[in-house]
Amino acid sequence: MNKPATIKDIAQRLGISISTVSRALRNAPDINAETKQAVVLLSEELNYQPNKLALSLRQKQTHTIGVIVPNLDYVLSTMIRGIDEVALEAGYTVMVCQSNESFGREILNTGRLLDSLVDGFIVSVSSETKIFDHFKKVQARGLPMVVFDRVTPHLTAPSVRLDNEEGGLLATEHLLDQGYKRIAVLAGPANLGVSNSRVDGYLKALKKRKVNIDRQLVVHCDFNQNYAYYATLELLAMRKRPDAIFTISDRMALGAMLAIKEKGLSMPHDIGLVGFNNEPIVNLLTPTISSVDQPSFDMGKAAAKLFIEAMHNQEDMYHVEEVLRPKLFVRESSKRL
Amino acid sequence: MNKPATIKDIAQRLGISISTVSRALRNAPDINAETKQAVVLLSEELNYQPNKLALSLRQKQTHTIGVIVPNLDYVLSTMIRGIDEVALEAGYTVMVCQSNESFGREILNTGRLLDSLVDGFIVSVSSETKIFDHFKKVQARGLPMVVFDRVTPHLTAPSVRLDNEEGGLLATEHLLDQGYKRIAVLAGPANLGVSNSRVDGYLKALKKRKVNIDRQLVVHCDFNQNYAYYATLELLAMRKRPDAIFTISDRMALGAMLAIKEKGLSMPHDIGLVGFNNEPIVNLLTPTISSVDQPSFDMGKAAAKLFIEAMHNQEDMYHVEEVLRPKLFVRESSKRL
Repeated sequence: MNKPATIKDIAQRLGISISTVSRALRNAPDINAETKQAVVLLSEELNYQPNKLALSLRQKQTHTIGVIVPNLDYVLSTMIRGIDEVALEAGYTVMVCQSNESFGREILNTGRLLDSLVDGFIVSVSSETKIFDHFKKVQARGLPMVVFDRVTPHLTAPSVRLDNEEGGLLATEHLLDQGYKRIAVLAGPANLGVSNSRVDGYLKALKKRKVNIDRQLVVHCDFNQNYAYYATLELLAMRKRPDAIFTISDRMALGAMLAIKEKGLSMPHDIGLVGFNNEPIVNLLTPTISSVDQPSFDMGKAAAKLFIEAMHNQEDMYHVEEVLRPKLFVRESSKRL
Repeated sequence: MNKPATIKDIAQRLGISISTVSRALRNAPDINAETKQAVVLLSEELNYQPNKLALSLRQKQTHTIGVIVPNLDYVLSTMIRGIDEVALEAGYTVMVCQSNESFGREILNTGRLLDSLVDGFIVSVSSETKIFDHFKKVQARGLPMVVFDRVTPHLTAPSVRLDNEEGGLLATEHLLDQGYKRIAVLAGPANLGVSNSRVDGYLKALKKRKVNIDRQLVVHCDFNQNYAYYATLELLAMRKRPDAIFTISDRMALGAMLAIKEKGLSMPHDIGLVGFNNEPIVNLLTPTISSVDQPSFDMGKAAAKLFIEAMHNQEDMYHVEEVLRPKLFVRESSKRL
């Protein structure tokens, strides 16, 4: 729907070749006046923007991918390593900018990378971003853009993401299977799609098993370990406290774990705990923490592969959506049976 | 010694003003022929390179800092957050490239960031790099360059680093104080300055306390957790096994810990363990692991501050060296008394 008109669209509508359209737009002398007029009129109608800088860039590639990420946490650093590996093999350099979850910095980063003549973008959207004109401008210039991890329905672009709903479902069904009855979820900020999908999976599991949904047990807080610690203390102080907690990140699981230990409760007996991301650390804690694994490195690799395909053939790629499957690793913190 | 000649050097030697030198080099009409000749001859003698592109760039700044790091592990990601914070306040965008410890990629990254018209560089050197011409070229262009974390005597540039020797000394003296007698050290690759300085601190502590140095107890391996695991198994299989291990990173301490537990040894009773970096994870393990803290975030901030100073006044900054102090956090893994 938001797909910018391409030179191919114009060629197809007029039944002429792409190179004829291209030459007509460049006002080449070997194209007849009628064809030129038709091309120009239709390109205006379709709001086609044959940016000359972009055209020259596509011809003179810099072999650089601009990557914008909200932060450099464990998951995103791992994804960038995946991007880097594929990029290197294909002869590309990767330049990374952090938005720090700020809409303004994301716009700044985008402009700066455009000025640096990157061949295109791989982006994970900041949690603040609700308007996408800065990214649409990139696409209108004819530069390929791949969205990964934090995707959005407001951009039509090739994308790679985890099936986050499935992840929430796996974690919650596992806790139900282990006999936990009152499962709380520590979610991220309320506007974050990735977090909301994981919560959707949690709600779906409860519905599927006909367990009553108690909205008090769905707590939104920051990804930060400290917030999760305090949120867990509040949950444990409830008159009817939860007997299991699913946190949508491992950092939050660490905070929850500290609160649980502080209250003298034991895992998995008194309370069950499942995290998300399967960071190496969860395997080293006592108890070891169950966690939903997302293949971060592979996700980065997939994003870079889509990018390189899009470099060669952007038009057919807009609706490509790769969805990777999560996997639950059950460990001591939730294994009661 | 490797300091490139500056316009200031030429002015001082000839006893004329910087602007006179500048105008002489630009062949301005208002400078007399003799002065011109003297400036040109001396600039050739000193190999001064008045790169015109650089001059125009310095006038038309892009407000972008190019950052090159060997990887995006916990410590470097934290340092980049520090760089980013100061850069943002000063109105700069940060673009990060990873060298992946490869000399070739570091050269590629440098060239790519130069093409992107960055205002200058903040770099942490790859472990493979032994020749520094790619960085000297940057300096010759008149762009400021700050070296951080992994510094090198082969580059004359403002730098920020940890007192790594002091860190090794603190860890080793603490282990001796706790009554450990046969202390091994798990070091990084043999060519890595940061690692070698930590080992120097270890050796210094042993000498200071008149403890015999056993070269078999100094093991070089990769920073990787797995390598440390196998190296520890080998240490524990020695006929006269060590009763304490100092690892020059926390990741390596995790590997050592797994091997120690697997052999049924208990910390701190049978064996003491001290890591390096003080990552949040060491506080969550059982036992908690003692570790040398480096103020990574502050180190990143300090590097960005030096950079911004150097943007205004590069010439006086070449020999500025900021050295941050490490701090030992004693925890269960080595607290015997």
